[in-house]
Amino acid sequence: MAPELKPADLWSDVHAVREHAPLVHSITNLVAINLNANVLLAAGASPVMAHAHEEVADMVGISQALVLNIGTLDPYWVESMKLALSAARERGVPVVLDPVGAGATPYRNRVVEELLLLHAPSVLRANASEVMSVAGSAARTRGVESTIKSDRALESARALSLRLGSVVCVSGAVDHVIDARGGRSARLRNGHPWMTRVTGMGCSASALVGALCAVTPDSFRATVAAMALFGLAGELAVEELHARAHGFGGLPAALIDTLQLLDQTTFERRLKLELGD
Amino acid sequence: MAPELKPADLWSDVHAVREHAPLVHSITNLVAINLNANVLLAAGASPVMAHAHEEVADMVGISQALVLNIGTLDPYWVESMKLALSAARERGVPVVLDPVGAGATPYRNRVVEELLLLHAPSVLRANASEVMSVAGSAARTRGVESTIKSDRALESARALSLRLGSVVCVSGAVDHVIDARGGRSARLRNGHPWMTRVTGMGCSASALVGALCAVTPDSFRATVAAMALFGLAGELAVEELHARAHGFGGLPAALIDTLQLLDQTTFERRLKLELGD
Amino acid sequence: MAPELKPADLWSDVHAVREHAPLVHSITNLVAINLNANVLLAAGASPVMAHAHEEVADMVGISQALVLNIGTLDPYWVESMKLALSAARERGVPVVLDPVGAGATPYRNRVVEELLLLHAPSVLRANASEVMSVAGSAARTRGVESTIKSDRALESARALSLRLGSVVCVSGAVDHVIDARGGRSARLRNGHPWMTRVTGMGCSASALVGALCAVTPDSFRATVAAMALFGLAGELAVEELHARAHGFGGLPAALIDTLQLLDQTTFERRLKLELGD
Repeated sequence: MAPELKPADLWSDVHAVREHAPLVHSITNLVAINLNANVLLAAGASPVMAHAHEEVADMVGISQALVLNIGTLDPYWVESMKLALSAARERGVPVVLDPVGAGATPYRNRVVEELLLLHAPSVLRANASEVMSVAGSAARTRGVESTIKSDRALESARALSLRLGSVVCVSGAVDHVIDARGGRSARLRNGHPWMTRVTGMGCSASALVGALCAVTPDSFRATVAAMALFGLAGELAVEELHARAHGFGGLPAALIDTLQLLDQTTFERRLKLELGD
Repeated sequence: MAPELKPADLWSDVHAVREHAPLVHSITNLVAINLNANVLLAAGASPVMAHAHEEVADMVGISQALVLNIGTLDPYWVESMKLALSAARERGVPVVLDPVGAGATPYRNRVVEELLLLHAPSVLRANASEVMSVAGSAARTRGVESTIKSDRALESARALSLRLGSVVCVSGAVDHVIDARGGRSARLRNGHPWMTRVTGMGCSASALVGALCAVTPDSFRATVAAMALFGLAGELAVEELHARAHGFGGLPAALIDTLQLLDQTTFERRLKLELGD
Repeated sequence: MAPELKPADLWSDVHAVREHAPLVHSITNLVAINLNANVLLAAGASPVMAHAHEEVADMVGISQALVLNIGTLDPYWVESMKLALSAARERGVPVVLDPVGAGATPYRNRVVEELLLLHAPSVLRANASEVMSVAGSAARTRGVESTIKSDRALESARALSLRLGSVVCVSGAVDHVIDARGGRSARLRNGHPWMTRVTGMGCSASALVGALCAVTPDSFRATVAAMALFGLAGELAVEELHARAHGFGGLPAALIDTLQLLDQTTFERRLKLELGD
């Protein structure tokens, strides 16, 4: 594979978000919309949420990345996503797709197919069930939660990455980032199980991938940096909650604190990254 | 009345949610949607929020309970609720209805009537003003808040429970749970006034009723267990905030902590439950 | 200018919200909707969020103030705002308009113009970019964030206030409140930069302006009181977070605590208010 990704490179991407405050346009779900805005702000990005058909193309036109999340989709919002996606394709704005709940209903599957046909995203980030479903495997998604481990979706992720030419990230206890056409892959072992017990965490990871894609032209590197930042911030936040003998109720606030306050030394020392197969 | 409900029975229901992680499909309001998802996760359930007409029936089909909340209703969402309600009726999925703001506007009253005509819910949970309004009493709801005490709605609640065959829960300083056809009733005196000073608390109680109905076929018992869990978690959360000299800003996070960490001993020792009239 | 505003007068307005718990009807954005409801509750007001065309006029009819916020507008919600605005005009209910993201897209500009043509609000509160855009200056809004300081929008704010007959509040490091027709102006220097790093803060300020307008017929005085309350609560909340060595993740909860617990002595001692030019 191409030149190795060093922790310092990833940190420089994280730092670039803080420095350039890229505008990240999200069309996301109603559950995670507030947390996603705050996660983007904490990472140093400028979030904007807009879904009116009359303005999505204009908003994409002033943004440095577009994040689409189908968590609480309906026909109006799906059309918003298509208009935004077309605008992003025309203007070369990087797109992150989070196919929340793919596999749970035929409608979600159909919408994901339509979005992918319109324009392959720079990055598709999802849990294992969702990735297998999008890839056409028989996985069944239980609501919006994965029923399987991320490793079991690896074959599907590779096939999907090859077919779409997109970076595919399967998140879980281990986060896999795959760029099949570029022959690159990475595994990240940061994070904590509590992150699955709070809503909107996966969506927030996707939002961060958008923020990193906004400052880093290499989508694979951007995704690895974003998942590193997210996993690390999450595990440090849980440690902070443990130290205070708290449960996961305070995880969103603690995660935002960590995203705000994380420094290079901690990032590089705690990162659990493996490159290649 | 039938075999007495023991605190240990209620705890076994609370525990069953943690063990079976039932999928609870909510069509809820835009204010409480995030808190409701987190409350369900903290109780051990799997929340899914979905409202697209194209998928609500499919989502009900894989869910163990359906929770409908009209807090920020509009015609599209009302139709979502009707489609979901019909699917739940066909498949025997338990339904919880939270008629937020019933009595505040004619539109809300009309929608609640239409929903009730389509299918009587397993449980209707509301504050006193709302229950009186749904029962046809002249109570006026001030926005989404009750203007009267829960006790004053008792007659209305009994009449409504008898008419619908539903369990009716009137929440307030005292929570009343009434199964008029089964001749059963319960009063719960847990909770804290601060719970009325944070938005989405009643909605979260309804979400928990859904989670308990998903694991317990007896809707009366499920409702008592859910209101016990909610009132207790709320009052323990406030104690924790008092101990830290905090206000109610941290109540949502503290409530989630308590839902996550509550144990059987505390539950049984602190429960303030009276059965019968 | 007319009789001087004393800190004690402003506090009496803040206290009146706690005492009378006015019903404040908000049609706001999906990102800030939960925080806005909690901020209103913490200040002692009763929030109600409703946007169905079938009920907005009825809800305005039982409310003491209406707050419109276009942050995540779409045609359905814009029509909701117009129906509510017409009802407020007919019934003399005070209106606060927060033109979030004005200047970012032509659609937002058009919608703001249409709303202003229908009925001039009692108060328009916005950041500097938005005020300049609404006033017809060439300012470009970057997403929903201001790119310029509040002072640079003063001329625009005066012109806009004169044209509309509305109080115009330009918020920023210094909050300017301008009643051009009444020849009154005020500057508030409370607050903290962290308040720009958490989403929904400006929207929450607008919600508080609504709460104060609900109890104080003088819109200028109400706006000064609300911005004083908000800036002070924010800066005290940040001090509390600093004392705990926390980041801004806990700012929403800490702000709500401060709104709940703020007392007259602290309010009057900490207020940084200058009247006149």
